[in-house]
Amino acid sequence: MPQLRKDPVVGRWVIIASDRKFRPSSFIVEESLEPEGQFCPFCPGNEEKTPPEIYAVRPDMSPSNSPGWTVRVVPNKYPALKIEGTLDKKGQGMYDLMNGIGAHEVVIESPEHSLQMEDFSLDHLGTIIRVYRDRCIDLKRDQRLRYLMLFKNFGKEAGASLVHSHTQIIATPVTPKRVKEELAGAKRYYEYKDRCVFCDMLDQEIEKKERVVAVNQGFIAMAPFASRFPFETWIMPIRHSPDFEALSESEEKQFAEIIHIVLKKLSLALTKPPYNFVLHSSPNRYFRPGHWETIEKDYHWHLEVIPRLTNAGGFEWGTGFYINPTSPEEAAEFLRSVTIE
Amino acid sequence: MPQLRKDPVVGRWVIIASDRKFRPSSFIVEESLEPEGQFCPFCPGNEEKTPPEIYAVRPDMSPSNSPGWTVRVVPNKYPALKIEGTLDKKGQGMYDLMNGIGAHEVVIESPEHSLQMEDFSLDHLGTIIRVYRDRCIDLKRDQRLRYLMLFKNFGKEAGASLVHSHTQIIATPVTPKRVKEELAGAKRYYEYKDRCVFCDMLDQEIEKKERVVAVNQGFIAMAPFASRFPFETWIMPIRHSPDFEALSESEEKQFAEIIHIVLKKLSLALTKPPYNFVLHSSPNRYFRPGHWETIEKDYHWHLEVIPRLTNAGGFEWGTGFYINPTSPEEAAEFLRSVTIE
Repeated sequence: MPQLRKDPVVGRWVIIASDRKFRPSSFIVEESLEPEGQFCPFCPGNEEKTPPEIYAVRPDMSPSNSPGWTVRVVPNKYPALKIEGTLDKKGQGMYDLMNGIGAHEVVIESPEHSLQMEDFSLDHLGTIIRVYRDRCIDLKRDQRLRYLMLFKNFGKEAGASLVHSHTQIIATPVTPKRVKEELAGAKRYYEYKDRCVFCDMLDQEIEKKERVVAVNQGFIAMAPFASRFPFETWIMPIRHSPDFEALSESEEKQFAEIIHIVLKKLSLALTKPPYNFVLHSSPNRYFRPGHWETIEKDYHWHLEVIPRLTNAGGFEWGTGFYINPTSPEEAAEFLRSVTIE
Repeated sequence: MPQLRKDPVVGRWVIIASDRKFRPSSFIVEESLEPEGQFCPFCPGNEEKTPPEIYAVRPDMSPSNSPGWTVRVVPNKYPALKIEGTLDKKGQGMYDLMNGIGAHEVVIESPEHSLQMEDFSLDHLGTIIRVYRDRCIDLKRDQRLRYLMLFKNFGKEAGASLVHSHTQIIATPVTPKRVKEELAGAKRYYEYKDRCVFCDMLDQEIEKKERVVAVNQGFIAMAPFASRFPFETWIMPIRHSPDFEALSESEEKQFAEIIHIVLKKLSLALTKPPYNFVLHSSPNRYFRPGHWETIEKDYHWHLEVIPRLTNAGGFEWGTGFYINPTSPEEAAEFLRSVTIE
């Protein structure tokens, strides 16, 4: 059973998942992506190599765990957290820990092994987004789970171990510290200004234009003013909304379109860079940690896309203080100039 | 001039150093370490290829900026922050920024190109530590600077761009957010318990033994209970002290010895892994942000050593919530079992 452990100084929770696939000795040789042509557990025909599916889009009504799907969701074979059990918080001397209860799912985004997200049709991308939304809605029903992280690791430098296009969802029984900080920051701004900090940000960006990468009817893609990484890009709904799951059908299409534009531009500009994206949405409504009464007004969901071009060094890890060699204005200008078909 | 910019939501400061050596297009091909046999600006004879030296240990009394040194300190040729100028804080609409004032120095740790830190004699390591201390004392005299970060990037995956053994010091005009959190966490614990959280931690670790990597007269090396990374190792002075610079002469020797043991064990156990180390010491005494009256009692300097074996993925970046596949107990046991000469 994985464990959740809390750092006694800063209060950061860490998942110790030592029953995953790594052992101390396996670090001696670095892990790498599977070589071309090797067996892929995410390809159609290999459905029995993953745990049984949780959900799948099957336009041909084919049976579960067989080919015919266009998007498929399975539990992670090496989960960081497990869904069975009770939370069981306890102390160990001065330390705090609890059982690693949670969910860890994988959304397999296409039956095609070699297509990446920017290659999908807008229709298919819309379907994937609907699957993300449906899984989030379903997982939020589990009252033990406080926060859902939906994220993609593309490329080895970004933490991926398989090439086949996929996104992961981890649901945790505690609200992560960085999320709490973001919620608290948004609340602080709202209390001072009576306005959402993200709404103010996107108003200023649309007016100034210099950090805008792309805009459509429902969304803006921009390089944030205090970008931590070269070509960091945030995608935000223009309409104020705290919850990704509240996406309307037309917004789904607009979100698919802007994701396509951003990923295609990054891919062309930087030659298929490794990247992560992370969905920032409001926590599980069941819990009311402090300011549920205001979160409707002060939080604004968004997607952060981070190309992994530099290796964050000791300075960044030690201080949380980032050094970014490319200004967001330069990055946005460069991305705006890239034309996609 | 580099800029310091503040994220309007979480309050994190970022250095935008777009006049450093990278341009947008340079990311298309990834940077790599200089190939074997290529020119090294840190080797003796090439002193004119670095900015003029700030400090050097020259047992033969040789003149500045010429060979003969055993440890040499120079400004970083591509500084993230610059020492000349005034802070000049200003707003830009809703955003906050200031000039990138600060210091960015490089300690070149040996005239030998191919020796790494674990290869140095204990005497030489003691000299390096004395140089670290002297530079910290000197930089703390600059009243514009609030915090000093001393850190090493070894290996490309850890952010290094040169092979020749070196450590960097960055001094910032703001206290980094993560440092503030650590100080606040230590203060909170002290207020509750009337004891230093780090002292309590090392007492419990010495008693339990399972996470101890090595101990000598003055220091403990341990895998922290909530380790974020496989083989993360903290080196802490056993005597309570908030300031690294207050190191006594005998502690200098003990610190050199335990650094040697830890780095040698990691190098043998994990075949010269890339790693970072980061010194965590108290901020500049000139400033009194909140709790200077208690920091003597509640903070405890230490060195965090982080082998870079896994690529932190989107989950870690997005939440500050780490998944560690190797428990600290396993890591410590593995390192204890490695015998060094």
